[in-house]
Amino acid sequence: MLTTWRDSEKHPVVGVLGGGQLARMILQASISLGIEVHILALEKDESTKDIATHYETTASFGPAEIYQFARRCDVITFEHELVDPEVLRGLEERGCNILPSSKSMKISTDKAAQRRFLSSLALPVPRFLLANSFAEVEGFSTAITPPFVLKSSKGGYDGRGVIFAENVDQVAEILGRGSFEHTWVMEPHLKIDAELAVVTVRSKAGNSTHYPPFRTYQRNGICAEVRSPCAVSEELLKQAIDLALMIAQETDSVGVQAVEFFITEGTLVVNELAPRVHNSAHLTIDANVTSQFENHLRAVLGLDLGDTSLLSPAAMVNLVASEHSPLERINLQGALLGGRSKVHIYDKTMRAGRKVGHITVLDDDVDKASELAHQAASRALSTETSA
Amino acid sequence: MLTTWRDSEKHPVVGVLGGGQLARMILQASISLGIEVHILALEKDESTKDIATHYETTASFGPAEIYQFARRCDVITFEHELVDPEVLRGLEERGCNILPSSKSMKISTDKAAQRRFLSSLALPVPRFLLANSFAEVEGFSTAITPPFVLKSSKGGYDGRGVIFAENVDQVAEILGRGSFEHTWVMEPHLKIDAELAVVTVRSKAGNSTHYPPFRTYQRNGICAEVRSPCAVSEELLKQAIDLALMIAQETDSVGVQAVEFFITEGTLVVNELAPRVHNSAHLTIDANVTSQFENHLRAVLGLDLGDTSLLSPAAMVNLVASEHSPLERINLQGALLGGRSKVHIYDKTMRAGRKVGHITVLDDDVDKASELAHQAASRALSTETSA
Repeated sequence: MLTTWRDSEKHPVVGVLGGGQLARMILQASISLGIEVHILALEKDESTKDIATHYETTASFGPAEIYQFARRCDVITFEHELVDPEVLRGLEERGCNILPSSKSMKISTDKAAQRRFLSSLALPVPRFLLANSFAEVEGFSTAITPPFVLKSSKGGYDGRGVIFAENVDQVAEILGRGSFEHTWVMEPHLKIDAELAVVTVRSKAGNSTHYPPFRTYQRNGICAEVRSPCAVSEELLKQAIDLALMIAQETDSVGVQAVEFFITEGTLVVNELAPRVHNSAHLTIDANVTSQFENHLRAVLGLDLGDTSLLSPAAMVNLVASEHSPLERINLQGALLGGRSKVHIYDKTMRAGRKVGHITVLDDDVDKASELAHQAASRALSTETSA
Repeated sequence: MLTTWRDSEKHPVVGVLGGGQLARMILQASISLGIEVHILALEKDESTKDIATHYETTASFGPAEIYQFARRCDVITFEHELVDPEVLRGLEERGCNILPSSKSMKISTDKAAQRRFLSSLALPVPRFLLANSFAEVEGFSTAITPPFVLKSSKGGYDGRGVIFAENVDQVAEILGRGSFEHTWVMEPHLKIDAELAVVTVRSKAGNSTHYPPFRTYQRNGICAEVRSPCAVSEELLKQAIDLALMIAQETDSVGVQAVEFFITEGTLVVNELAPRVHNSAHLTIDANVTSQFENHLRAVLGLDLGDTSLLSPAAMVNLVASEHSPLERINLQGALLGGRSKVHIYDKTMRAGRKVGHITVLDDDVDKASELAHQAASRALSTETSA
């Protein structure tokens, strides 16, 4: 692949399936490296619409659509897990360069497959069972005592596809009493002391690196805040890093991959993986030597990976639009907080529950950074401007 | 201006006159802030050609051409000093929002006017005289004894428009023995101990900030390397900062402005100013909280200016194409130096003497950073790839 573009007059072309904010930040990073990013999106006006010189839409990510797109790119990569891994496998057989590969995507996009895979490696995961019908949920409820959590094996993100249930009747209310459309992962509702994420980068050439772990804070299933460095014992951090690197290798991951962990009763369990640039590492744009977006590009093109060191303690807060937001757009001047914050706008229309941007604040005191980032986020979504 | 776009559904639109690497890096910075950058360039294939969604060419920066362009932008700014300040003044009178203003541009674009202006403020400048003919050069050569330097009052950059002469005959060889086309600034060839640059940012609202001073190293009149922090006595640094801020205020500068200083015989003299984002501050992309490019956008839009703090010692080396380069494009993998360097490619065809990119290396030891940046630069322009 390297030969293709280094010997030609072209820029390397990276095709991204999806045109949202992750693609937007990949595109921004591509400019430094002289890489062209082409977007294939489902909607006419996603986050990259006004910044991409190559923006196409497709009605679906079917084999024909992706193949057409792939022919114009040196490599295809993803900003989401919405493409059927079987479609990807077929495209690989037709010679398309797809990274991460269909094999890695398959493990990551199906939560049931993911859990089976992680247990097969003897990794610490929450106790779980796979339920295909209400009868199974009822049967399992003696092994996994309520309250429990059910996670849809497919299509869940940002809190969607997750059911917290006090008892089996609450499950029946949502999923009915018959067979389910697809498998649900059933697990105990753990008492979580902390959540963290380890973001790895693995290059086409096989070498890998990782970012210093991120401490993450969720609200309603959406990542609300991230801090770096991660205030958790050195021992747990080391364990988490080792596990994430091992998982990257076992999934044959190429590019950025995030592993989310819970700390429960003082021990680490793997919650899930995401085979792509990840919300927990958005602060790497401002706080680390090389951002996750740049490193993803380097990895899928087989280039040397960049230094992941943290340059300053930092906190990131997502801008999540609410029903109460008085604005049609983010209040940029408010968001800048008198110059203390770094603002990232996704150019999305405000819709309740939607991530429309994020704010990172650097400060030697990470608690102070967090406090300021929350202040800036609150101003970003209000009409308040004065510092 | 703020009202114009914050209350509308549009993004703020910043028009840049010039489509080269400085515009490229401004455009990259604009993505975070959700600002649209429109380019007006003289050539079809400048650095921004493949990344700008709004790229137009014009045969010249005449009043009609700029006016047409300005009507579609909230503010017009520059990546060079090639536009006639009188043209800008006329456009301002017609209501165009141009920043920095014609007044600031006038002082900065004419080296003779600049020297007169700086002396009128009683600032330390090299001793100089303004010569309009060879007869004047001969006359002045008793006051300014050879060797001396002549600098064209207009159009000089990157070492062009500068004559180093051992005696008056050498001047005659280049400029003839009659009247000159325009004024030349004649000054002694100073023994320079060090060069530094202070880059200020002044917002439309009048508040200002500055970057920690940069130590700069020239080769053949082109900036070859920059280091930050600047290893010069605290006292001289403080003086330089005070002078640069004072100059920003006196020139009524808006946006980024760079003041270049010489240290000669232990004292500081002002060499010249540039009313725009500046090569000495390219390392701010990777090493400072807010890059000069982002801060320029914030300033011309009247937004709060960002934190200019240095996050890590850093060295930047320009990639200057030579006649001997075997490549049509930068060797990206070589340039990455096994992951140690941050590479910025300008997407320009290789032409001898042309800046085609730059490389920044961060390291606690700035000498080490410099050494690595030079290594990376040398690989970037050769076929060498292994680390």
